[in-house]
Amino acid sequence: MSDYKPTENTRVLRRPERAHYDRELVHSIIDEALVCHVGFVADGTPRVIPTTILRVDENVYLHGSPQNRMLTTLAEGAPACISITHVDGIVAGRSGFGCSVDYRSVVIFGKGEIVDDPEEKAKLLYAVIDSVLPGHKVRQHKDSEIGATLVLRFPLNEVSAKVRDIGVKDVESDYDLDAWAGVIPLRIVSGEVQDDVRLKPGITTPEYARNYLGPSRKQY
Amino acid sequence: MSDYKPTENTRVLRRPERAHYDRELVHSIIDEALVCHVGFVADGTPRVIPTTILRVDENVYLHGSPQNRMLTTLAEGAPACISITHVDGIVAGRSGFGCSVDYRSVVIFGKGEIVDDPEEKAKLLYAVIDSVLPGHKVRQHKDSEIGATLVLRFPLNEVSAKVRDIGVKDVESDYDLDAWAGVIPLRIVSGEVQDDVRLKPGITTPEYARNYLGPSRKQY
Repeated sequence: MSDYKPTENTRVLRRPERAHYDRELVHSIIDEALVCHVGFVADGTPRVIPTTILRVDENVYLHGSPQNRMLTTLAEGAPACISITHVDGIVAGRSGFGCSVDYRSVVIFGKGEIVDDPEEKAKLLYAVIDSVLPGHKVRQHKDSEIGATLVLRFPLNEVSAKVRDIGVKDVESDYDLDAWAGVIPLRIVSGEVQDDVRLKPGITTPEYARNYLGPSRKQY
Repeated sequence: MSDYKPTENTRVLRRPERAHYDRELVHSIIDEALVCHVGFVADGTPRVIPTTILRVDENVYLHGSPQNRMLTTLAEGAPACISITHVDGIVAGRSGFGCSVDYRSVVIFGKGEIVDDPEEKAKLLYAVIDSVLPGHKVRQHKDSEIGATLVLRFPLNEVSAKVRDIGVKDVESDYDLDAWAGVIPLRIVSGEVQDDVRLKPGITTPEYARNYLGPSRKQY
């Protein structure tokens, strides 16, 4: 796969050595996200709203209520900036400047296109669930539910990743200090599943919930 | 403490029952954050950048390089929207509509003020470290480092929290389905500490790193 092409918006100005335009890396960072943060302007004010995100091939999708202002603003063609960040570790250096975080992030610029076709919407909405919680099956969507959901497609054109994974990098003279330095890796884990109190008798906690490993990375 | 006053920007339009203006709740959500997502407009385009955040009393602080475009844009008075999100659990419902995430989020609107005083800057930069990794001591900041760091203060005026913590809420007829539903709680945990390969002999991994519990909630 060819890399994404840097644009005016996605050329990383600060620390360009951390910039990546590799499709597979970008995809993996998006696919691991439970939420993204969507930036847009409404009433002249920048706004940032968290929401779930789905990727299928070279598009990402946001969905929600047609009363959601973020979605209606973007449906009208307002430019969006979709940001995804995974904090992988705390970097404890010997100086303040030496402290940092290791992270993987992606930023996507673009405009949304409304997904009109009910069948495509239905398929995408099943994919959202299977992406967030692989294995979980829900009853068939009702036409009224599909109708009451706005789905926006954002082609992955203007996109870049930024990664810091170098751990501690202190200024040379600081390595002589009698000080500890290192990296504390961080990850998201699942805890004990809370069954719905209204489960029908005989329904037990499924394996995919008991051993949840995070959002799926599989392709749709 | 009195609540924050809802404004045009912070009055929650969708699902107002999830909105909160309680200061202690807002503070706790901010204080738990390793990163926030900062929205702003530069060159006419909305942008969202992840960065660390510190709260002291009724102000939050962003910091970084004076070459960082997000910071320089905000230092010039561009309006910002700072968003913080904690995903607390995956809500697996019996329908697509019944699937959701439990979360706590905060959004802050405002303009940044440059912190000029080197002593105040130094104190804030120590506080950032102590907030992210309580117990970690670094060598004294150099004047040149303080000078090469831009610190912006954002008073907490226009701010709101949004919380979903109700778990599964399916439509009534779906409770008859032979389907599992429940909540998978999520949390961030630390893994095995990676000591810097250039540690001096005799320096051992400190307790605060081995048993890292997340960003401090203590006051400065």
